[in-house]
Amino acid sequence: MIKITFLPDKKNVKVNEGITVLEVLERAGINIGTPCGGKGICGKCKVLINKGITAAILIEKELLPEEEIEKGFRLACQTKLFKDTVIEIPSEIRLNFKRVFFSNLKGDIRHFKNNFSLDSNFKKVFLDLKKPFLDDQRADWERIKDELFLKKIENIPNLRASLEILKKIPVLIREANFKITATVDNDEIIDIEKGDTTKSSYGIAFDIGTTTVAGYLIDLSTGKELSAVAKTNPQAIHGDDIISRIEFTQQYKGALEILQKEIVNTLNEIIREAAQRAGINTNNIYKIAVAGNTCMHHLLLGLNPSYIALSPYIPVTKESLNLKAKNIPKLVLEATVNVYILPNISAFVGADITAGILATYIWRNKKIILFVDLGTNGEIVLGSKKKIWTCSTAAGPAFEGAQISSGMRATEGAIDKVKMDNKSIAYRVIKDGKVRGICGSGLIDLIAEMLNLGLINKSGKLINREECNNKLSEEIRNRIIEGQKGNKFLIAKGKETENGNPIYLTQGDIREVQLAKAAIFAGIKILLKEVNIPQDDIHKILLAGAFGNFINKESAIRVGLIPQLPLKKIELVGNAAGRGAGIALLSEKMKKVCQDIAKEAKYIELSSSPDFQKEYIKAMFF
Amino acid sequence: MIKITFLPDKKNVKVNEGITVLEVLERAGINIGTPCGGKGICGKCKVLINKGITAAILIEKELLPEEEIEKGFRLACQTKLFKDTVIEIPSEIRLNFKRVFFSNLKGDIRHFKNNFSLDSNFKKVFLDLKKPFLDDQRADWERIKDELFLKKIENIPNLRASLEILKKIPVLIREANFKITATVDNDEIIDIEKGDTTKSSYGIAFDIGTTTVAGYLIDLSTGKELSAVAKTNPQAIHGDDIISRIEFTQQYKGALEILQKEIVNTLNEIIREAAQRAGINTNNIYKIAVAGNTCMHHLLLGLNPSYIALSPYIPVTKESLNLKAKNIPKLVLEATVNVYILPNISAFVGADITAGILATYIWRNKKIILFVDLGTNGEIVLGSKKKIWTCSTAAGPAFEGAQISSGMRATEGAIDKVKMDNKSIAYRVIKDGKVRGICGSGLIDLIAEMLNLGLINKSGKLINREECNNKLSEEIRNRIIEGQKGNKFLIAKGKETENGNPIYLTQGDIREVQLAKAAIFAGIKILLKEVNIPQDDIHKILLAGAFGNFINKESAIRVGLIPQLPLKKIELVGNAAGRGAGIALLSEKMKKVCQDIAKEAKYIELSSSPDFQKEYIKAMFF
Repeated sequence: MIKITFLPDKKNVKVNEGITVLEVLERAGINIGTPCGGKGICGKCKVLINKGITAAILIEKELLPEEEIEKGFRLACQTKLFKDTVIEIPSEIRLNFKRVFFSNLKGDIRHFKNNFSLDSNFKKVFLDLKKPFLDDQRADWERIKDELFLKKIENIPNLRASLEILKKIPVLIREANFKITATVDNDEIIDIEKGDTTKSSYGIAFDIGTTTVAGYLIDLSTGKELSAVAKTNPQAIHGDDIISRIEFTQQYKGALEILQKEIVNTLNEIIREAAQRAGINTNNIYKIAVAGNTCMHHLLLGLNPSYIALSPYIPVTKESLNLKAKNIPKLVLEATVNVYILPNISAFVGADITAGILATYIWRNKKIILFVDLGTNGEIVLGSKKKIWTCSTAAGPAFEGAQISSGMRATEGAIDKVKMDNKSIAYRVIKDGKVRGICGSGLIDLIAEMLNLGLINKSGKLINREECNNKLSEEIRNRIIEGQKGNKFLIAKGKETENGNPIYLTQGDIREVQLAKAAIFAGIKILLKEVNIPQDDIHKILLAGAFGNFINKESAIRVGLIPQLPLKKIELVGNAAGRGAGIALLSEKMKKVCQDIAKEAKYIELSSSPDFQKEYIKAMFF
Repeated sequence: MIKITFLPDKKNVKVNEGITVLEVLERAGINIGTPCGGKGICGKCKVLINKGITAAILIEKELLPEEEIEKGFRLACQTKLFKDTVIEIPSEIRLNFKRVFFSNLKGDIRHFKNNFSLDSNFKKVFLDLKKPFLDDQRADWERIKDELFLKKIENIPNLRASLEILKKIPVLIREANFKITATVDNDEIIDIEKGDTTKSSYGIAFDIGTTTVAGYLIDLSTGKELSAVAKTNPQAIHGDDIISRIEFTQQYKGALEILQKEIVNTLNEIIREAAQRAGINTNNIYKIAVAGNTCMHHLLLGLNPSYIALSPYIPVTKESLNLKAKNIPKLVLEATVNVYILPNISAFVGADITAGILATYIWRNKKIILFVDLGTNGEIVLGSKKKIWTCSTAAGPAFEGAQISSGMRATEGAIDKVKMDNKSIAYRVIKDGKVRGICGSGLIDLIAEMLNLGLINKSGKLINREECNNKLSEEIRNRIIEGQKGNKFLIAKGKETENGNPIYLTQGDIREVQLAKAAIFAGIKILLKEVNIPQDDIHKILLAGAFGNFINKESAIRVGLIPQLPLKKIELVGNAAGRGAGIALLSEKMKKVCQDIAKEAKYIELSSSPDFQKEYIKAMFF
C-alpha cells in the first residue's frame, strides 16, 4: 500500500501500486475527469507531482511542454503510482474539465460581476411532526404544511402537493412515527421520505444530441458533478440526421412512439449508470433538466416533428416546459420528479444552443462572442449582452465521419491528429492500436497539412504527382494515387490498419469537407453581416460539441472552417449544452435567463437569405 | 295546436293539447323542475294561470291552499293544457327548485349585497390564426398565444398548455386551416378545437353521497342547468355507511381501487346520461366540480381513508384540489378537463357541507342560521358571517329506511306522508301504487301523529290497547298489536300492500328513530352551547339532503328532530351540496369563498364533548 496526499485538498488515501493518478483521484472522490475520457489524447488532466515523481512517459512528452514536465507536471490519466506521492491539483485544471461541473461554473463566475448561486427554491427539510390527537385533528397534509411554516420555509404561501404525494402520506408518516423529510421545489412538495434524508439530493442534466446523449449527475446541495455518462442515441438506426428521423415518423404509424421509447430507454440507462457510478439511489433524484436540439426535444416529448422539416420550418413550441417525470412515459424516475425542458430558439437552433449560450455567459458579455457548435447541423451564435443572433447550417455529417470514405467517429482506432512535413506523415490513433479510420479532427488536420504542402490546391483539387512542389519527398509523392474519378491520398498503409487494407483520403472526401466547412463559414459570414461588424471585432470564438473539443485550432483556421483570428481568441468549450442544462437545474434565476435567451435571440433563416448561397460558394475555396 | 304565453318571460310556444305545464316549460327551456320530480307530491311547482284556466284536480286541492286555487294557482306538473293559455311563473318559485340551478342562485343574490357573477376566467375564443411563412416562423403554440393576446385575453401573462394540448396542436390547426377555438381556464389553454365552437361550453357539478350520487350539467356561459341525473352509489354493496366501506379497504388489498372504480363508473354514467338528455357532446365538457363527504372524497381520489375512521379521525387532506381528469383513472372526460375538488371541513364534515354552506349563503348572512343535512350522518352547521361552527353525529340510516322493519328509500311504493286522527289513518304512496314500505318522511309523520294521539308516550313506548285515550276509535286501537318484545302498530293492511303482507311500526323502529333524532338534536344543542346563543336567536333552520327535502316541518318539530321554532323559519333547501358545487364550478371568486369556509369553519368533535352524552340521553325523550 502506498500513501497519496492531495494538495491543496490535503486528502490522504492509500492505494495499491501501479494505479494511475486519475483512478486514485476518482476513488478519492476528486472528480476532475478528462475531455478525452482518460485516453491520453487531450493532455488536459495535468497535475503537479510534488513528491514521488517518476519519469515522464512518451505520451506525456508529446502532450506537455518540456518546461512543465521539468517542473513536475504529469498527466493524471497516464502517470502510474509506485511510491508514496504528494499530488497538487492546480485550481485552474478544474476549469477545463467537463466532469467538474460546478467547479467549472465557479471558474466562469469569477469573470463576471453578477454571480449565480444555488437557489433556495429547492430544499429538503426534516420534520418531526406533532402526532394527532382529538384536540389536534389537522389533516396529515395540513400538519406537514404547518410544520414547514414553523421551520421558516416561508416563500411558499401556496404550497401544494400532487395526488401522488397525498396518496403516499398517510401510511408513510405513521410508519415513520411522524419523523419525515419533505422535499420542496418552489411551491410544491415533490417528495416525502421516512426519517432524515436531507443529505441526499440529486439531479441530472441531460444533453440529447442527434448522435450522442449525455447525462451529468449533480448534487443539488453543492452543485458538484458526481458522475457523467454518455451513450449513443439509439434512434440513429432510423437515420443519422434529424430529417431522416422525421421522415420515419411520417412513414410509419407509431414511429413517434418508437423514437420516444428509444430515447427514454437511453435516459433510463444513463440515470441508472450515473447513479451507480456515484453510489447513490435513484430515489434521491428529484429534478432533471433536458437540453436537446428541437427535433430531439419533440421526439422526447412525443410532439409531432413533421413541420420542423417542412418549409417554413415550424416547431410545436419553443418555450420551456415544467413537466413531471410521469409526463414522459416509462421514465424510471418517480412520477413527481420535476422535469425542466429548456427552451428552443427555432426549428434548427434548439435548446442545446440555448444551454450553450447560458453556460458560456455570452448573454452577459460586453464583447462580441462567436459560438459554433459543430455537429451534423452547425449552429452558429454571434452576439453579446446587447443582442444575440443565431443561425443553423446543414454542415452534414462529414465531421462525424459519415460520408467520408474512411471516416469514423472519434473512438478507438480513429486517427485523430495528423502531422506532415515534406518528408513524412505522422498520425495519432485513439487508444494506440491499429488504425480503423479517420475522425473529424484528423480529417481537418490532414487537409490543413496537405494544403500547406500544396498537395491540395485552393479549389480543393488533390493534385497529380507531377504537379507536386519539388521539395516533397518521394515518400509523400508516392502516396498520391491517380485515378479517373480524381486522385486519392494514402493515409495509412495496409500493415498499419486493423483489417490490413490501406486507407485513403479521396477527392470525394475533400469535397465533403469543403461542403461542410463552407456551410459553417458562410453562416458565420451572414451573421457578421447581419450584426454589421468586421471579423476582427470578434472577441472570442468558442467551439462547442464533441468534435469541437478535439479540433486543432490552427487546422480549423487553415481549412477555412472558422475566421482567421489569433489562436488565443479561440477556445474549445466542450459540451456547453450539458453544462447549461446543469445550470438551469440548479438555479431558478438562471432558468429565467435561459428563457430570456431563447425569447430574445434572433434567428436568421439562411434558406431565405439571398446572400447565403453567394457566401457558401465563395467559402468552398480553401 | 294551442298557444302558450309565459309571463313575465313573455315567451310564446305552441304545443299539442293534453300536455302538462311542466313539460311545456321544459320544452321552452324554462327549467323550473320540482323537488319531487313532477310526481305531484311536493306541491312546489305552483304557477299562476292568467288565462285559459281549467278546474283544479284533486291532488292540487290537497297540496295548495284554497285561496291560491281560487286566485288561479295550479301545479305545473299536474295541470294539463287544452286551450290557449297565459302562464305566470312567480319569481319566488325559482328559489325552491333544485333543477333551476342558476336561476336559483340569482334568486338568492337578490337578498345579498355582494353579487356573484360568472367569472371571466373561463372563456372560449375563436382564433383565425395567421399562417406561418419564412418571415414568420413563430412556433404553433406562440402563434396561438399571440393571437389570444391580440384578442385582449389579457389576464394571462403566463398562459400555459399541458403536453396533451401541445401534442394536439400541430395537426389540428393545419387540418382546421388555422381557424380554431381555444378554451381558456385561468392561465391555461385546456382545449383547442377546429373551427368556431365558442357556443358550446359545459361543466358538471357532482355531489357524491354515501347513498346517492347526483350530477348537474351546467352551461358555463350562462350558468343555466341543462339536465340533472342521480344514481345510487354502487359502493353500497360493500356497506351502507362509510365505516363499513373503510373497513372493506382495510380487509382486502385492492379494495380502494375497486371502490374508486365503482364511483368513477357512476360519474361516467351520469356524464353520459346528462349530456344525452341535454343533447350536448361530452367533448364540450371542460370543467367539473366535485363535492362529497370526506370519505367519498378520499375514495374518489384513491386516498387511503383508514385514519378517518380511527380516533382521532384524521383525513389525508382537507384542502381543495385543482386536478385534471387524467388524475382520476378511467374518467370518460378528456385528460385536460379541469377537476375542482371542494375542500373538506373535517373527517366527518365533508366538502358536501362546505358546498351547502356556500350555496345557502350562511357565510354572508348577518343572522344566525342552523343548517342540518339529514343523511346517514347528520351534519349540523350553526353560524353567520361572523363565524361558523359544525359538527357531525352518527344518526344512522333510519331516516333512509335502513334498520326500520318496513323501511325503504323514498321511491315508488313508499309511504311518504301520514295523516291520523282519533278515527282513522291516511297515507300517501309515492307514485300511487300499492304500499311497499315506509320512508323517512312517512316515518316522522307517523310517529308525530301517534305522539299527538298518545299512542306513543314521552319515553317512546308504544302503549297497550287498554292504555289508549278513550277518544280513540276501535279502528285505531285495534291497530295496536301487543307482543312480548314490545307492541307494534299496523300501518297498512295486507290488502293495501304489494306483497299482501301487512306492514307495521315496531317498538324497535321507534327506538331507532329515537336514536337518530336524539343524535341530531343533541348535536344542535351542543352547537348552540358552543356559540352561546339561545334557541330563539336562530333566524332560520335549513333542512338539506334528499330526505330533508320531503320532511313535514311540523312532524320534525313534534318528534324532536329540530328545535321548536315558527314554521316559517324552517326551509327545505334540497340538494344544497350539488348547488354549492355548481357555484364553485362557475366562479373562481366563489371557489375562494369555499376554501375560506372550509378553513375557517370550526369543527366540534362530539366524541370528545363531555356534554354530548348528556344531551343525547335527554333528547331520546319525545
